[in-house]
Amino acid sequence: VDVGKGERFVDRLKTVARRAGHDKLWKAAGGYAAVYPINDRDGIAITTDGVGTKLLIASYLKRYDTLGIDLVAMCANDLVCVGATPTVFLDYFATGTLDDEIADGLIAGIVEGCDQAGMILAGGETAEMPGLYERGHFDLAGFAVGNVAKERLITGDAIRPGQTIIGMASSGIHSNGLSLARKVLSDDTGTLEALLTPTIIYSSAVSNALAAHGFRIAGIAHITGGGWRNLFRLNSSVGFAIEDPLPVPDILKEIAGHVQEEEMYKTFNMGMGMSVIVEGDSEPVLKALSSSGLLARQVGTVTDKPMTLTIAGSAVTLRG
Amino acid sequence: VDVGKGERFVDRLKTVARRAGHDKLWKAAGGYAAVYPINDRDGIAITTDGVGTKLLIASYLKRYDTLGIDLVAMCANDLVCVGATPTVFLDYFATGTLDDEIADGLIAGIVEGCDQAGMILAGGETAEMPGLYERGHFDLAGFAVGNVAKERLITGDAIRPGQTIIGMASSGIHSNGLSLARKVLSDDTGTLEALLTPTIIYSSAVSNALAAHGFRIAGIAHITGGGWRNLFRLNSSVGFAIEDPLPVPDILKEIAGHVQEEEMYKTFNMGMGMSVIVEGDSEPVLKALSSSGLLARQVGTVTDKPMTLTIAGSAVTLRG
Repeated sequence: VDVGKGERFVDRLKTVARRAGHDKLWKAAGGYAAVYPINDRDGIAITTDGVGTKLLIASYLKRYDTLGIDLVAMCANDLVCVGATPTVFLDYFATGTLDDEIADGLIAGIVEGCDQAGMILAGGETAEMPGLYERGHFDLAGFAVGNVAKERLITGDAIRPGQTIIGMASSGIHSNGLSLARKVLSDDTGTLEALLTPTIIYSSAVSNALAAHGFRIAGIAHITGGGWRNLFRLNSSVGFAIEDPLPVPDILKEIAGHVQEEEMYKTFNMGMGMSVIVEGDSEPVLKALSSSGLLARQVGTVTDKPMTLTIAGSAVTLRG
Repeated sequence: VDVGKGERFVDRLKTVARRAGHDKLWKAAGGYAAVYPINDRDGIAITTDGVGTKLLIASYLKRYDTLGIDLVAMCANDLVCVGATPTVFLDYFATGTLDDEIADGLIAGIVEGCDQAGMILAGGETAEMPGLYERGHFDLAGFAVGNVAKERLITGDAIRPGQTIIGMASSGIHSNGLSLARKVLSDDTGTLEALLTPTIIYSSAVSNALAAHGFRIAGIAHITGGGWRNLFRLNSSVGFAIEDPLPVPDILKEIAGHVQEEEMYKTFNMGMGMSVIVEGDSEPVLKALSSSGLLARQVGTVTDKPMTLTIAGSAVTLRG
């Protein structure tokens, strides 16, 4: 995967998208979701995502019931980053020839994911394309919609030096960096099973925090492709100091044995699946985020060094 | 493609989807889109679709600039069937390794399609998965959102025997039945280019007709997979008599040389890409549908024979 090439394509995409009416959308933090106004007060947030090459691991292990959770997680976690409440989900499932075991497993995971995210599985598309997918191979895309009032929209503009960064613990690799992980790790069943651990769906916990203490929340970053650089998406005039990082999951420690430290932070979640930036007293937000059993704690502070992220106990400094 | 297996899977899906809150959605004609209430009066319609194996033809010919039109067409044409006005579009583009020519071509088509449909291209996901897609191969899914007021929602319940069926001419095979077409046709460049003719985007014309004469429109069927059986999706208590069919495009005539007539009507659009069912005087609706240069005309009548479709000049009778 040539990241530079991908980024140049995304730049061209942005130019094209502007031509096609992008200016009518409301500004939302980090581009995690597009927000379209329904009227002056209410908008809908929409996003799409896949699970990347995690699905090749599922194919190899013939374990299909967790990928749907990842799929919903990737979309629902993105929606809450702009302040939206996830409502409905659609899936696109493409395969060579329909295999009942695969299809039923995937759907079971999607249903479980929608349940965790409080979303309605509103429909989807199942496509059989024998010439495109090999036997047992498939692709999976998710599409999620949420509601957001204009006054509740998170733009990232309220982020200021001195604010608290709350980290929410990840369950493992989640759904990004799987290609690199497969390249450096052995393909024994135990390792692959650890890679398959489903992504945590943070959206219900974050929605609860937003509903009760939204006025305190200045920014939310879902740590996906690009690792901790995702924080730079929120606001380009500040920096981030991670002073007390969350524990790194074992599977990521294993990968770290083969990959340079800086590359680890630029690719993986490194134990933090979600970051929430809080103004003022962070205790009530922490309590709301932790209430559903998720591990959330203060991990750092917003700084005045633009696009710079430092990590306690590490020589690595990320720059945007 | 085993249609029976697919249909059984969709039945299982429906059971599962009901568990996941399907009852909160508004009833909409034919399941062309899911409609989710924003408040008591306003809803949003959402749908997802792909272009099927038409993309293998594009890959083979290395012509990538029309598939995006098909992608938007499949989604936007579905949205108007429930009475919604298409607003925003997202694409999911997955490939082995990003190829600039392919990516830029696909996006150009999507932008052109969004322009024709009056939609904003709000974003998308580009996924590189080397282990899943061969060199030059890719998949493409579209997600589309529209607005619909509850009182403008088309449920199909207003369809009655005696109403007029308007047919809107197709441009060729559109985006369904490509696997069968490739199986029976020669793969010379001329034939493949004819198969690649983009799907007509009817949504702007239909939206105009709905805005001006919506009270007359009882049902709209996008003729996709399943061919003319799509009409049965609208209302199971009536039948359809096609008395004056639209001309069959040459490429479909060519396929008809190798495929049984009944199979043709059950698989392809047979010259009619969209059907609009009209109560009372159909002239104003016809005028609105034709104003943008699309060919629309009266092709038949709704009958009182449930789930039965007859075709003038053909011995074929379809049953639901």
